[in-house]
Amino acid sequence: MTLPARPRVAITMGDPAGIGPEICLDLLAHGPTATLCQPLVFGDRVALERAADATGKPRPRQVVAWETWQADPAATDGPAVVDFGALASADLVPGQVHAGTGRAAYRYIEAAIQAALAGQVAAVATGPIHKEALHAAGVPYPGHTEIFAAHTRAGRACMMLTSPQITCSFVTTHVGYRDVPGLLSVERILDVIEMTAAAMQRLRGRKPRLLVNGLNPHAGENGLFGGGEEEQFIIPAMEKARALGIDLTGPLPPDTAFLPRRLKETDAYICMYHDQGHIPLKMLAFDTAINTTLGLPIIRTSVDHGTALDIAWQGKAQSSSLCLAVEMAARLGAPA
Amino acid sequence: MTLPARPRVAITMGDPAGIGPEICLDLLAHGPTATLCQPLVFGDRVALERAADATGKPRPRQVVAWETWQADPAATDGPAVVDFGALASADLVPGQVHAGTGRAAYRYIEAAIQAALAGQVAAVATGPIHKEALHAAGVPYPGHTEIFAAHTRAGRACMMLTSPQITCSFVTTHVGYRDVPGLLSVERILDVIEMTAAAMQRLRGRKPRLLVNGLNPHAGENGLFGGGEEEQFIIPAMEKARALGIDLTGPLPPDTAFLPRRLKETDAYICMYHDQGHIPLKMLAFDTAINTTLGLPIIRTSVDHGTALDIAWQGKAQSSSLCLAVEMAARLGAPA
Repeated sequence: MTLPARPRVAITMGDPAGIGPEICLDLLAHGPTATLCQPLVFGDRVALERAADATGKPRPRQVVAWETWQADPAATDGPAVVDFGALASADLVPGQVHAGTGRAAYRYIEAAIQAALAGQVAAVATGPIHKEALHAAGVPYPGHTEIFAAHTRAGRACMMLTSPQITCSFVTTHVGYRDVPGLLSVERILDVIEMTAAAMQRLRGRKPRLLVNGLNPHAGENGLFGGGEEEQFIIPAMEKARALGIDLTGPLPPDTAFLPRRLKETDAYICMYHDQGHIPLKMLAFDTAINTTLGLPIIRTSVDHGTALDIAWQGKAQSSSLCLAVEMAARLGAPA
Repeated sequence: MTLPARPRVAITMGDPAGIGPEICLDLLAHGPTATLCQPLVFGDRVALERAADATGKPRPRQVVAWETWQADPAATDGPAVVDFGALASADLVPGQVHAGTGRAAYRYIEAAIQAALAGQVAAVATGPIHKEALHAAGVPYPGHTEIFAAHTRAGRACMMLTSPQITCSFVTTHVGYRDVPGLLSVERILDVIEMTAAAMQRLRGRKPRLLVNGLNPHAGENGLFGGGEEEQFIIPAMEKARALGIDLTGPLPPDTAFLPRRLKETDAYICMYHDQGHIPLKMLAFDTAINTTLGLPIIRTSVDHGTALDIAWQGKAQSSSLCLAVEMAARLGAPA
């Protein structure tokens, strides 16, 4: 089907017991977002209306049942809620996640992926889910990235976090510290470099400059520390990437890679493990980074915060990260 | 022997081919330092004079041979060079380290430790050395911390980096990424907590608040990631530390531990590995952090930068970090 000039973006509501419903209400009412795209919140009417009443925000103005919407997406105009009725009202206790809320959150994601694969939406932006709730619901994936990779049968995928200050892509993410060295390979590092270069080319409109971090302190200091991971995996991957015309520098000592001079000349960092990139990223761009899953056949962005159960349904949550994620999804999903 | 009111501080010149000589020249001419202590540069006259001529800085005004100085330290007054004649002039090529410069740099350190153990100096501040040069010289230690620990027969020691913005102590430092989990133990973590609490008590003049980082992403998220290092090592060490009256919080997810709110309420961070602390520290306090080795029977501080071979002997190097390291040595070495 032909996509409209203003791309449709599916926004999954996240775990209903967290801050997802209230930030989705803000998003639906956010004028600038609606000029960039048609925001469609994939969620449950009951949760959104109860969250609206609890926080004093306006109830959603347009609600369409999933089956109705899916039969003719073009029939719905403007910001809307696509309602799944997936949630038993009794299961919904603000601040308390469990199997019922985890199952509903998973349903929104499955449907958003289905709509994106069918071309009914141009991109998906995901609200925050709770790993323990998903687990309680018997969902066999630890998080969004894995759900999207499995449902889209992506051969490769990686997480990229973007902000105006800093962008990081990850060779490994939610694995234990000790498991990282065993997950490094020339192929994986090259994949992440390639996916990042392509995404940054699209976002910057020019050839990006990438910086590749070492794994070890001082990037191994010529083999003095560590298992030679720089020489065995990182440098060969960089050589192959250079042969493909990608502009990169490294492997650099991780502790000086994030100094202001480097930040200024770097479009994106290739990070070997979670905290190597998340420590500087949260310091420089707390709460404003957007999570994009690269390598999928569909576009997916995400907020970079959790369900914030401790402040859920109190009207305190900021929707700025969700608005930015939807904006990024709209930019990546717009016709090139 | 009785120490004078103005403590003597030995400053090792570092690798002669790096920026050590020129920053030592600046230090000897730095008025405020000489009001706090008697600075004694342990090095080679030939390197200092040649560096002075190359950079246009003044040659040292007072030079004493090591044997002469050692026989009667009180006979030397004011800033001085203690000359070892350890360096063959032909071995000295600015910007090129090798066995000869590594061997000389090691000689200054050995002598400074000897003088400190004998009570002839109150503290030692070390200039930058080059690990490859030490290695080429057959020195069986990877860095200063290990040399000091071995020569003073310290049962335990750890590196602490201090700046006005942030202070970090390290459970492990210059080891490969993959070697870190195997070096964690309840005893080692407790040692580092205890040494850090004692040093910060002295520097702050009150009970310090420590923050202990987890090893894994999200501090393991209740065992979801990693080998359970938080439960097996970190939490038991923290419980023992609390029983000793030490005020600490953790284990915290490393990527949110360094946000402004945490920084404000934390006197020192306990870090499990090199880059966990060095990434935020260099971002917040590049070139101004002071390295102190805790747990030794003598006081030792150090610059937090390297030999900077690429700019050596060009007069570009900043001596501010060395001046701060000497100042910290003087403060820690002054009679309590």
